[in-house]
Amino acid sequence: MTSSTHNSETISGRKAVVLLSGGLDSSTTLAIARSLGYELYAISFDYGQKHRFELQAARNLAQGFGVKSHIVMSLDLSVFGGSALTSDIAVPKGRNEEQMEQSIPVTYVPARNTVFLSVAMGWAESLGASDIFLGVNAVDYSGYPDCRPEFIRSFETLANLATKTGAEGTAKWKIHAPLIELTKAEIIRQGMELGVDYAMTHTCYDPDSKGYACGKCDACLLRLQGFEQAGEKDPAVYQAAQST
Amino acid sequence: MTSSTHNSETISGRKAVVLLSGGLDSSTTLAIARSLGYELYAISFDYGQKHRFELQAARNLAQGFGVKSHIVMSLDLSVFGGSALTSDIAVPKGRNEEQMEQSIPVTYVPARNTVFLSVAMGWAESLGASDIFLGVNAVDYSGYPDCRPEFIRSFETLANLATKTGAEGTAKWKIHAPLIELTKAEIIRQGMELGVDYAMTHTCYDPDSKGYACGKCDACLLRLQGFEQAGEKDPAVYQAAQST
Repeated sequence: MTSSTHNSETISGRKAVVLLSGGLDSSTTLAIARSLGYELYAISFDYGQKHRFELQAARNLAQGFGVKSHIVMSLDLSVFGGSALTSDIAVPKGRNEEQMEQSIPVTYVPARNTVFLSVAMGWAESLGASDIFLGVNAVDYSGYPDCRPEFIRSFETLANLATKTGAEGTAKWKIHAPLIELTKAEIIRQGMELGVDYAMTHTCYDPDSKGYACGKCDACLLRLQGFEQAGEKDPAVYQAAQST
Repeated sequence: MTSSTHNSETISGRKAVVLLSGGLDSSTTLAIARSLGYELYAISFDYGQKHRFELQAARNLAQGFGVKSHIVMSLDLSVFGGSALTSDIAVPKGRNEEQMEQSIPVTYVPARNTVFLSVAMGWAESLGASDIFLGVNAVDYSGYPDCRPEFIRSFETLANLATKTGAEGTAKWKIHAPLIELTKAEIIRQGMELGVDYAMTHTCYDPDSKGYACGKCDACLLRLQGFEQAGEKDPAVYQAAQST
């Protein structure tokens, strides 16, 4: 429950809101927040994503991590369209690294992280918290503008202006993005050290009706490559493994 | 449909998303956006507010202004508690100006404008728009941190970092807050010049079951004072007027 790199005495018992999608990155982030001694509050979003299995994964993980409270907030971003994650646009499959890096992918959901952070900030302020954790990553998701360090810093600035606690100076907001500069393999190694059960996590953008991962979308490919590079076996169940 | 202070030739036909609560300020803001020649997209939020009559007012106003599309987005901020607008905390009544200015009022909803702007930004990006209008006011609502000019500027900075259009440089986000430095009387005068029917707007934080305004909450008092100072009669229906 302590970390050698942080002063846990000052953190222990402080509340943190953690954005928990139910995927590998957010689960690792939750484990990191726990290891630092924060009292955990997890928030997930039912935003019209096609890969809704991640919400059940989030519920299981929240329970497994013993979070103080877990909210699943409904917010239908699919009414906007424009993303393969929430509309009829097909999720790309079998892309190589170069293709993934070429441009902002169609799986980009406009304003998603800004919306999620804003809502998390509202809940945090109600709880008397000013620490928010999220598992964004600028290495594997270099194409998503709202996964970049400059976005996170800008949101911190905004939070200090937008809130009562920030405006009155009673708290200074800190948006923690502990994975932002890590490779997927480094994330997995850190999570395993902290006891994350990755069998409980859901990563795939395009699972089948049973929730089994496709193994071919960008998210699956990055996950599989991460486990391979970490020298570990991915405990998730893939469709291909089921059909053979 | 044009304005002498803006170049309507470059704006005409451009899309703008307008935050429309159904109140006096947002209705005036909608009228201003229309007068500048924007194609109008209005968004309202069902966020668990006790004064839900404003949502019907928003629908009527959107229709009256001929907006291209009007979305009412459900997002239950009341789960957080902490505000008199969404929880069992009583709405303050009969406060004088000095009392209103003393501190951030209990009607402050944590992160509200940040959440609303974030969702509006997502919709705007899906529409190919990069202009958002909102009716915040730093004069009458000096206690709300997210009604200040520095908050608006900070959100603009964030928008340019958070979005695909901003990151790729295809658009520069502009958050328009045309009322921010105006008094309520100036807002009302401008709205009347632009043809706003204020009988259609809903302002009260604590209406009765018929939607009649209480006449005593901060919002009602500021509205009534604004009409008086503008030398106009408020066409809204107040409870007191009904009971006499």
